[in-house]
This record gives sequence, C-alpha cells and structure tokens, in this order.
Amino acid sequence: MTETKAKEAVTAGIIVIGDEILNGRTQDTNTCFIAQRLNEIGIALVEVHVIGDDVSVIEQRIRDFSARFTYVFTTGGIGPTHDDKTAQALAQAFDTTLELNDDAVKALIDHYGTDQLNDARKKMAYLPIGAKLIDNPLTAAPGIRMDNVFVMAGVPSIMQSMMEGILPKLEGGDIVQTRSVSCDNIPESVMAPYLASIEDAHEGVSIGSYPKYKDGVPGLSIVLRSTDVETLEQATQQVFEATEKCK
Amino acid sequence: MTETKAKEAVTAGIIVIGDEILNGRTQDTNTCFIAQRLNEIGIALVEVHVIGDDVSVIEQRIRDFSARFTYVFTTGGIGPTHDDKTAQALAQAFDTTLELNDDAVKALIDHYGTDQLNDARKKMAYLPIGAKLIDNPLTAAPGIRMDNVFVMAGVPSIMQSMMEGILPKLEGGDIVQTRSVSCDNIPESVMAPYLASIEDAHEGVSIGSYPKYKDGVPGLSIVLRSTDVETLEQATQQVFEATEKCK
Repeated sequence: MTETKAKEAVTAGIIVIGDEILNGRTQDTNTCFIAQRLNEIGIALVEVHVIGDDVSVIEQRIRDFSARFTYVFTTGGIGPTHDDKTAQALAQAFDTTLELNDDAVKALIDHYGTDQLNDARKKMAYLPIGAKLIDNPLTAAPGIRMDNVFVMAGVPSIMQSMMEGILPKLEGGDIVQTRSVSCDNIPESVMAPYLASIEDAHEGVSIGSYPKYKDGVPGLSIVLRSTDVETLEQATQQVFEATEKCK
Repeated sequence: MTETKAKEAVTAGIIVIGDEILNGRTQDTNTCFIAQRLNEIGIALVEVHVIGDDVSVIEQRIRDFSARFTYVFTTGGIGPTHDDKTAQALAQAFDTTLELNDDAVKALIDHYGTDQLNDARKKMAYLPIGAKLIDNPLTAAPGIRMDNVFVMAGVPSIMQSMMEGILPKLEGGDIVQTRSVSCDNIPESVMAPYLASIEDAHEGVSIGSYPKYKDGVPGLSIVLRSTDVETLEQATQQVFEATEKCK
C-alpha cells in the first residue's frame, strides 16, 4: 500500500438564477453539466440553489455560498436586458459597485465593432470593481470572476464554453472513482441489507441504490463511489456476489 | 374593469434530495415537472435546493422551507435502502420519531402480499408520528405528508403519479397568465430598452427575455407574465409593436 496524504476536500456550490426555471418554462441542464465536469476533477458539488431574478436574493446567496464553498458557480442573468441582475448582485455581495470594465469593452468592440456597441450591450461591460473576465468565444458577453465566484451565462452552449475555459484554472481534489453493478429482476428491498453492511465494512465507500422500472419489471443500479480504488474494488466485488446470491 | 380581490400569494419550495444529482449521474427532471404543475394552479415556486443524502441537512432544510413557504415538496430518499433518509429527517424536522404506520403496512401488504413484506420493505412503513400517506399506485411505497410538507419518490414516474394525487388537495392562488413574442434576427440588446420601459409601464407584468441561437443566428423569446389578463394583453401588444419597429 502506498502512503498518500489525502488532499483537503475541495467543494462547490451552484446558484441557478432565473424565473424561467422556477415557472417551469425551462428545464435546467446546466447543473448536470457542471456537476459532471467538477466530479471529473475531484471537486465535490455540495449544494445547488435555484432562485429568481431578484438582486437582494442573489446577493445574499452569493455571500453565503462564497463563504461556505471552495468555488461557486452561477448561471443566468448576465445579458443586456432589464431582467439580467447578476452583475449588480455580485458587486453588492463583494461590497463594491459596478464600473465600466476596459477589458470587457474591448472584447465587445472586437466582437461587434464600435458602431454596434449600443447602450444595452455596453451594460454588459459594467462589472464589479476588481472583477476578472471569463472568456466567452461565442458572443463576447463576458462571464465574471470575483474571488472564488464564477458568474456564467444561462444559455447552455455559452455556459459550457465558459466552463471549459474555467476548468483548467480550478484546483481539484482527490478524484472520486465510480463502479456500477446493474441487476434486473432483483427488487431494491432484497438487496437493501447487503448494501448497508457492505457500505459499513468499507470506509470511505458510499453506495447508492437507484431503482428503475422497465416494462413494469423492477431493476436496480447500484453505484459505488470512493477516492480509494482498492477498497472500492473490494466493495464492488462483494456487491456483485450479493446480486448473484439474490438472483 | 371588474373588481376582484387578489388572493394572498401562495408559494412553494422544492427540496431535491440525492447524491446522484450532485455528482452528475442523474439529470433532475422532477423540478421542471412540479414547477409546471404548480404554475398551472397559481402556486409560485420560489426556491429549489438540491442537497445530498445527509439526515441533518435534510432536516434543517425541511424546517426552513416549511416555515417560509405555503407548501414544500421533496423528491428522493424514501426507498428501502440505507441511503434513503428522508423519513428520518422529516420526523426530526417535526420534533417527533418514526413509528410503524398501520395504513402504510396495509398498503404494502395489499401490493406485495404478506409473504413478500421483508424487513427492508417494512422500513418504508416507518413514518413520522402523525404522518399521512400520499398514494403511490405504482409501487405502494407511500409518500408522506406532514403538515405543509409533501415527501415524494425520486423516480420520475412514481413522483409524477404521487404529484397528480396531491394536486387536487392544494389550494392555488391567482393564476399567472403567459404570453410569448418570438423574433428572429433581432439581437437582445436592441430590444432591451423597449422591454424595460414596457415592464415599468405595466404594473404586475414581468417580462423575461431569453436569447436563443439557431445556426449562429441570434433570436429572442420574450415572455410576459401577469395575473391580470387585460394589462398583460396591452403589454404584449406593445412588445409586438417594438419587435416590428426593430426588424
């Protein structure tokens, strides 16, 4: 066995901003995308909040998440219209104000040309004092970084392109490895006692049990997760043997 | 104009429970389904939290949401396995304990038969003292109601069938009507000043602006929402006229 010092846990929170998620108009897919990307580099997503387009709620949530998690990601509310309130809320959360950001103006001019830089587009260049830009190759409307908070667009294609630019700048933790055991025709309740005792016997391994129904037949996906591959493999083997017993 | 007294705002919060959402294994679709159904009966979804399978976090969140919103809906964590912790958390949130619930036992026996009622299934019949059952025609594993909190399954088909049973028991508020104006080839920034002033001029109307990109061409969906149809129609007409001007 090699001696490796476990890294400190690296955590994240996501704040999804937008009335359109809360009234059911839009199915959020950004959370799942960000969650997968963070997972791949050993950052544990701890909590996601979906909130509406309200400056003081956004401000308060950014303050809270910034203090609680290593990294915070927000999606939505950074466009040119009246319902885009995230930059203002971000400034308030960091006890500062918006100013015209030269780098953001330059990015917008490079993309649209000087003659197309109308007032609404210029609004997107007002960023909190001290903010850094997050690259947006698609529309040049910048994402914003303040300290550990990354403010991104809500449109999935734009958010994804911003996120790919952010990822290399993040410091990940120990990578959580995953193993899955699938079994049909075994009800979850039959596997339940095995799973509990296997999880108890393998420190650091978490076992999730996810029932599924296909044509009325109950099946089960059992997902094991741990940063320690050796223990994970042992636990997975025991889960597999238990499913064989239950068939 | 008819005089109608506005009903008191009816609000809701959703708590999505499950490590599988936070690690990106599962795309949550329950939030969007519940949001749409609530919207249809005039209940405003104010906030959604996604949290992991942790009893004390779930407990604390149920306490908080139950105090803040008219109705609270939770999804996930009510099955027979060790990672199903919502019932325990619910009991703690209401300062009570779990007991074997006769109605739940009966529902399980009716569905599985006495000989198939193993210990793990029986676990699902331990509910907080004072809990009421939420019907689950699909698997008989009951959902749980305590006061204004509705605890549902995480599997979408089961959650949906529970939700359809719950809806007639909810008291809705004023129904928010929606109108949409779609326009291609008009950048959001060009519409921005019109939208802000139209929203300002029509009390109770909220206007959302949602950019979309199709084959690189920017388009826009403008969504107007209000409980007052007359004002909503006026505002929609003005938005439509503004898009015509901007073409």
